[in-house]
Amino acid sequence: MKVAIVGLGSVGRGVAEMIAKKSLGLTVTGIADSTSGIINAGGIDLHDVLDVKHKTGSCGDKKISANEVIKKADYDALVEVTPTNATTGEPGLSYIKMAIGRKKHVVTSNKGPIALAYRDLKKRAEKNGVVLRHEATVGGAIPIFHMIEHGLAGNEILAIFGVLNGTCNFILTRMSDEGLTYEQALLEARQMGYAEADPTYDVQGIDAAIKLVILANTIWGNGVTLNDVNRTGIDLLTPDALRLAEDEGSTIRLIAEAIPKKGLLRVSPRIIEKSHPLVVEGTLNAITLETDMAKEITLIGRGAGSIETASAIIGDLLFIRDRYVERA
Amino acid sequence: MKVAIVGLGSVGRGVAEMIAKKSLGLTVTGIADSTSGIINAGGIDLHDVLDVKHKTGSCGDKKISANEVIKKADYDALVEVTPTNATTGEPGLSYIKMAIGRKKHVVTSNKGPIALAYRDLKKRAEKNGVVLRHEATVGGAIPIFHMIEHGLAGNEILAIFGVLNGTCNFILTRMSDEGLTYEQALLEARQMGYAEADPTYDVQGIDAAIKLVILANTIWGNGVTLNDVNRTGIDLLTPDALRLAEDEGSTIRLIAEAIPKKGLLRVSPRIIEKSHPLVVEGTLNAITLETDMAKEITLIGRGAGSIETASAIIGDLLFIRDRYVERA
Repeated sequence: MKVAIVGLGSVGRGVAEMIAKKSLGLTVTGIADSTSGIINAGGIDLHDVLDVKHKTGSCGDKKISANEVIKKADYDALVEVTPTNATTGEPGLSYIKMAIGRKKHVVTSNKGPIALAYRDLKKRAEKNGVVLRHEATVGGAIPIFHMIEHGLAGNEILAIFGVLNGTCNFILTRMSDEGLTYEQALLEARQMGYAEADPTYDVQGIDAAIKLVILANTIWGNGVTLNDVNRTGIDLLTPDALRLAEDEGSTIRLIAEAIPKKGLLRVSPRIIEKSHPLVVEGTLNAITLETDMAKEITLIGRGAGSIETASAIIGDLLFIRDRYVERA
Repeated sequence: MKVAIVGLGSVGRGVAEMIAKKSLGLTVTGIADSTSGIINAGGIDLHDVLDVKHKTGSCGDKKISANEVIKKADYDALVEVTPTNATTGEPGLSYIKMAIGRKKHVVTSNKGPIALAYRDLKKRAEKNGVVLRHEATVGGAIPIFHMIEHGLAGNEILAIFGVLNGTCNFILTRMSDEGLTYEQALLEARQMGYAEADPTYDVQGIDAAIKLVILANTIWGNGVTLNDVNRTGIDLLTPDALRLAEDEGSTIRLIAEAIPKKGLLRVSPRIIEKSHPLVVEGTLNAITLETDMAKEITLIGRGAGSIETASAIIGDLLFIRDRYVERA
């Protein structure tokens, strides 16, 4: 199967590295970062590209744009891994539409377009006889959408509960384990590279809320948006609140919840028993599905990381290869 | 898709009930328990069958055997859910061979045939152009094999660690939480219906070892058998040993481990940190996969139960329907 990749940040490089390293039957015929691109119908040498990118900051020819790669390269599936813009979805949103317009399958890790326009994009893909997959948008390496589609096929999903933001979970773990204040734990998260200079997006629950919107739209197709999420962050939590929870054998975690029958769509710090499967440590993510037949199923795994996220992208690519491309 | 069911114990009844209740596009054309059977090419009324089974103990015509249903009914996939015999695999082993011989897909929850003859059965299925799926043999409702095949496609599975026996986990949870002796906790497990009159199969780790053999053979195709498992049960554990572990923030769980690179295949009580995702409560099951890209992924869910196990069977049936039957 022929693949084009747009975006060569941490995730894009992870995907390129894994395709180069493993024998997956995937040939990359187009690749682009924000300033340059390469088109090569015979297959691009990814070791070279990663080397050049590392040394010069650009991957290829500055006269070739991502737009051109998407429009002109010969590929079966586009890997769209440009940075998330939660307000406009761009440039990923346009890239995805362009590829679908060319009847190409799309795999993305980009939360912006999926949170903003999933229903529209899915309709466009169906109309064009291709698929759009976005396993990497929620829970990093955790294959939650594959699990719902396959292992849990036939189940009705009644509710979702998730620890979807590794930064918040790290901060809460440190506050709980070491009795740190929120400020101390945030400082530590910054030093470890887990928190941005401006941590608003993470600590106020926006990132978790975006992922909850993606989960809800994918599972129930209910067209909810970020504005529908009742959201409280962790930035006002005190060590005292945590201590009170701990005295009862519980702790506090930032939990994203969706229960359609109750109209509930919420991200907030919740008191939760320490023995509950959702209570994971450090930057881990966890998702519990409540279903009619399997009852509660919990998945725990790495919520971020270059190779971990590449795992989700490659799972989607191989699914498309086996189900749609080799079948054709 | 047309389905035949052999076995109407707890799992078979769960499957029949769910097929009757849900609109899954599955029509049952043959059904048998150990003493009777029904063949009806037009589709069997499962509500009636379950009602008759409940009232009389038999589901149908005593002149029609399971053998006859498998050989004569018109179906695409056989659901083989007869009781596990870990020594001979029978009668399930013969039933599965018979259906594969007729070029029928097979879905089973029966650990015996899969632990004893997976490689042979898989070869027969491949030769006949059909598939054999056995999601329900390990971890009840946890869709571990679907996850490895799809969500984690492209990953190398480096190791497995599992809590695969709910009875042992219940006993260990009670010993840990309440300071009970093994004998007291076992008695409680019996009263709750979690342990058999003869608990050997569970508490000596045989059931967990069989599931470990199935996992290893399915993932690595390495042809290991029950004799290859280094096995220690929980029946000699003392409250003192548990107390020592608890003093260090840890506890004891019966862990099944397979690490091919180390030649390790073991079921034994292990000291494990309480915050580890594998430390689940009560009768829950948990499986951690260590992989090259996704790193550690843990699944937690119900390891037994009529409807929970039916969930795994139905997931397999719908996979076969979408991938092989509707495709044809």
